[in-house]
Amino acid sequence: MSDEGYKLETNAAGRIVPTTINGKPAVPFQGVGKYRPAGRKAAPPVATCADYPGDGNKVLTNLKTALIKAGIEDGMTISTHHHFRNGDLVANRVFDACAEIGVKDLMWFPSASFPCHEPIIRHLDSGVVHHIEGSMNGPLGEYCSRGKMRGMGVLRSHGGRYRAVQDGEVHIDIAVIAAPTADPFGNANGLTGPSACGLLGFALADSQFADRVIVVTDNLIDFPCVPWQIHGNYVDFVVKMDRIGDPTKIVSGTTEITRSPDRLLIAELTARFIKEAGIMKGGFSFQAGAGGISLAFVTFLEKYMKETGTKARFVRGGSTKYLVKLLEEGLTEYILDGQTFDLDGIRSMRENPKHVNTSPFTSYNYHGKGNFASMVDAVVLGATEVDVNFNANVVTHSDGLLLHGIGGWQNCLFSKCTILSIPSFRDRIPVIVDEVTTLCGPGELVDVVVTERGIAINPRREDLIDAVSGSDLPIRPIEEIKAEVEKICGGKPAKPKLGDEVVAAIKWVDGTVIDCVRRVP
Amino acid sequence: MSDEGYKLETNAAGRIVPTTINGKPAVPFQGVGKYRPAGRKAAPPVATCADYPGDGNKVLTNLKTALIKAGIEDGMTISTHHHFRNGDLVANRVFDACAEIGVKDLMWFPSASFPCHEPIIRHLDSGVVHHIEGSMNGPLGEYCSRGKMRGMGVLRSHGGRYRAVQDGEVHIDIAVIAAPTADPFGNANGLTGPSACGLLGFALADSQFADRVIVVTDNLIDFPCVPWQIHGNYVDFVVKMDRIGDPTKIVSGTTEITRSPDRLLIAELTARFIKEAGIMKGGFSFQAGAGGISLAFVTFLEKYMKETGTKARFVRGGSTKYLVKLLEEGLTEYILDGQTFDLDGIRSMRENPKHVNTSPFTSYNYHGKGNFASMVDAVVLGATEVDVNFNANVVTHSDGLLLHGIGGWQNCLFSKCTILSIPSFRDRIPVIVDEVTTLCGPGELVDVVVTERGIAINPRREDLIDAVSGSDLPIRPIEEIKAEVEKICGGKPAKPKLGDEVVAAIKWVDGTVIDCVRRVP
Repeated sequence: MSDEGYKLETNAAGRIVPTTINGKPAVPFQGVGKYRPAGRKAAPPVATCADYPGDGNKVLTNLKTALIKAGIEDGMTISTHHHFRNGDLVANRVFDACAEIGVKDLMWFPSASFPCHEPIIRHLDSGVVHHIEGSMNGPLGEYCSRGKMRGMGVLRSHGGRYRAVQDGEVHIDIAVIAAPTADPFGNANGLTGPSACGLLGFALADSQFADRVIVVTDNLIDFPCVPWQIHGNYVDFVVKMDRIGDPTKIVSGTTEITRSPDRLLIAELTARFIKEAGIMKGGFSFQAGAGGISLAFVTFLEKYMKETGTKARFVRGGSTKYLVKLLEEGLTEYILDGQTFDLDGIRSMRENPKHVNTSPFTSYNYHGKGNFASMVDAVVLGATEVDVNFNANVVTHSDGLLLHGIGGWQNCLFSKCTILSIPSFRDRIPVIVDEVTTLCGPGELVDVVVTERGIAINPRREDLIDAVSGSDLPIRPIEEIKAEVEKICGGKPAKPKLGDEVVAAIKWVDGTVIDCVRRVP
Repeated sequence: MSDEGYKLETNAAGRIVPTTINGKPAVPFQGVGKYRPAGRKAAPPVATCADYPGDGNKVLTNLKTALIKAGIEDGMTISTHHHFRNGDLVANRVFDACAEIGVKDLMWFPSASFPCHEPIIRHLDSGVVHHIEGSMNGPLGEYCSRGKMRGMGVLRSHGGRYRAVQDGEVHIDIAVIAAPTADPFGNANGLTGPSACGLLGFALADSQFADRVIVVTDNLIDFPCVPWQIHGNYVDFVVKMDRIGDPTKIVSGTTEITRSPDRLLIAELTARFIKEAGIMKGGFSFQAGAGGISLAFVTFLEKYMKETGTKARFVRGGSTKYLVKLLEEGLTEYILDGQTFDLDGIRSMRENPKHVNTSPFTSYNYHGKGNFASMVDAVVLGATEVDVNFNANVVTHSDGLLLHGIGGWQNCLFSKCTILSIPSFRDRIPVIVDEVTTLCGPGELVDVVVTERGIAINPRREDLIDAVSGSDLPIRPIEEIKAEVEKICGGKPAKPKLGDEVVAAIKWVDGTVIDCVRRVP
């Protein structure tokens, strides 16, 4: 649990949240679009070519040397990215090297952490790492939930992480960027090499704003590494490692459509809703991720698009072979891709100029001059819980355990039609609840909830209610679906028994605190 | 002439330079690689999506409205770029609109200005524009030279301009970016449309660091404009105009090799030098521009590359059909291109992923963590004058008139072998002189001077002298060539008669003042 004192305050969503996080002041959520940022962007130090080799060769022998040359010290913030997902071999090596060097109290600032990062627990226990700010999927989330971490966890969306760095809320001392291909100057991309992951957008903010940037690669090629998704002009040092990722875990290769009849029904209802509400029309756009329901949704929508001769202007992913198929069949003009989930996605991004890599800056940064997310006609998302006011949770389970990151979820809520496509219960625990355990997304941004028992439209969206009024879609009030599910499950979910201590804060896209997570005893 | 007071000081190159420029302190040149920047990069204001349309449509009806919405005020700095060269139709319209609005004392900060911008003289005379910082090719340069501009002109290299903006030396209030193709969100590129110019790299700093950014286009397409060379996330407003450029003047279409026998000889000697010095070897790189000698040099080098089966890793341009031919024949793996000079260059950049667009950030910014310029094996440049210590001038003529910009010239001096390929005299005025009229590049960075009368190697480069010692190249001391030319021309060039007033400062790549230009009466 946090070793820093903090006060609590009730925010505009009625949630009690800390006003200090890890010793820094935090602003409680003020309502969607209400918080106004002041000030100017973070300003990294001005470098000079006089300090860098004229021949462009920044290669050092190993990570430890690079960390020392980067000036690593106690209490610094070290960032990594999660494009290798559960196949990342770099972050653990970074903190092993830090332990060898003998530094303490680091803040780890990953774009996300995965079960493969369980070894970091050793460094949290020993004091090398003080705390983590970033998504903690699995064991690190549970470690945090149990109150074992000294600092407070901070969860941000992908766009929120870019914003935090850009706004100077998080100052990265040293960024370590694992790159599937790089040149000695530090130009890097994710398109080729044994650890190919597609793109490196999650490391963009780190490269632009960190004081020091280390690129680590297992595929060092001659200058120029083209395209340079990461600019070598931001990079201090390059390190070659034997292996930076486990390809079988970077891309699953087996991203598969759900076989559950209930979930297939949810996917079909979602696609039908988009069609019958008139969203599916020439030049439209949608976003779908890599979950089983999302993938099935894409294949249903593809069918309707073909039947009606409808083509999209662009689709957004997490790309998979299903989105690539749409592009290759001419059903969409572009894929605007935030991360590639399978080998078809990587191949397509490498070969097809209409499969475009994006970043949290272009797609999601709420403190930009607009972003792509709000231009998307419909987005299909999941959730761990949704309440009768359409508020939703994506990070904790109903037992209070923090097991998931936010990803781009909060950012995507700004689409023109946000759909949560979710089973009405999981493991006999209702998903539709009176009040979500943790508030991640305000109900005013959630337009539609699609379950296997019917579709609930947010009463605020009268336009959508009108649009499908003539259809035979199973449109029902959310309360009615909830009541039915409670009957099936034998009542409402049990209230989790939680400690008082705040173990993690949930940031809204604008940096305010929308909710927090309490210790699970 | 400048209406601000300034003091003068002798810099490390022995030149007397102002220590105040337009009311701001300026640091005299301290020697190559000697000046160390302090502080942090410029920090633009943090924006919020709450202030921008959710549907991404930032289109306004006209430029005047956009300037007013951008908050234009007296004394602001307005930037434009020069990718349309002498075919630009936007900059004049910007200042016409400013005149209509009634603002005064603006600073115009173009990446370069051309004869087509002569109408700006009216706005300088009337007080709408206070002064220009940026290259002034032709009439505006003469206007400045004659002491008619109220402020001091400041000339920076392409890299120096990026650096000045990045370092906060120049704060751009409003950037106006003319874009051959753009979408309503402000994503933009130079690849297609009636005013296609290839790339928009010179506007990159403006987009990243200006408080307000206006994109002006005559080819507005649906989102997304791919590729987005300029990110819409940096853009405030988009304006559609009927025509933003005159295609016949944007690209000449007739970039032609010199027919002068003397200049052909210079080109041939340059190519032979690169071959015989051993620079032309497998995987090498070179840069050549779009002048008549440069183009001829490329064709000679191409011949030698074919004869010897030598392939380059990359070539840098200003691209022309001659560089494109190298790429398409497989004689180079990449073109790393800073600006496209003809239609073949634009086509190639649009179609060939190995014809890569670069920017002054990647190529030239001296206050980055290295840049591309120093990695180039050989660069072939011009000059208006060179002295016996290899110091060179590229902005003034021997009569003292400021008629040219610096371009990427200073930045390119950092290549591994910098060659000035120049006629030994022009209009019967010697080009090799005792002391250059204006110092733009320190002699320690100029390695070779190739003239039609022989090749002079900088005595500092013993390695190059050794490398060609066995060749039959006409290697001669620079003093000897100079003496011969003076005989032909009937003596040394007449010393220009100049006023005392400083009308323009010449910045070195690191922002220090390497020289200044005096008024020509």
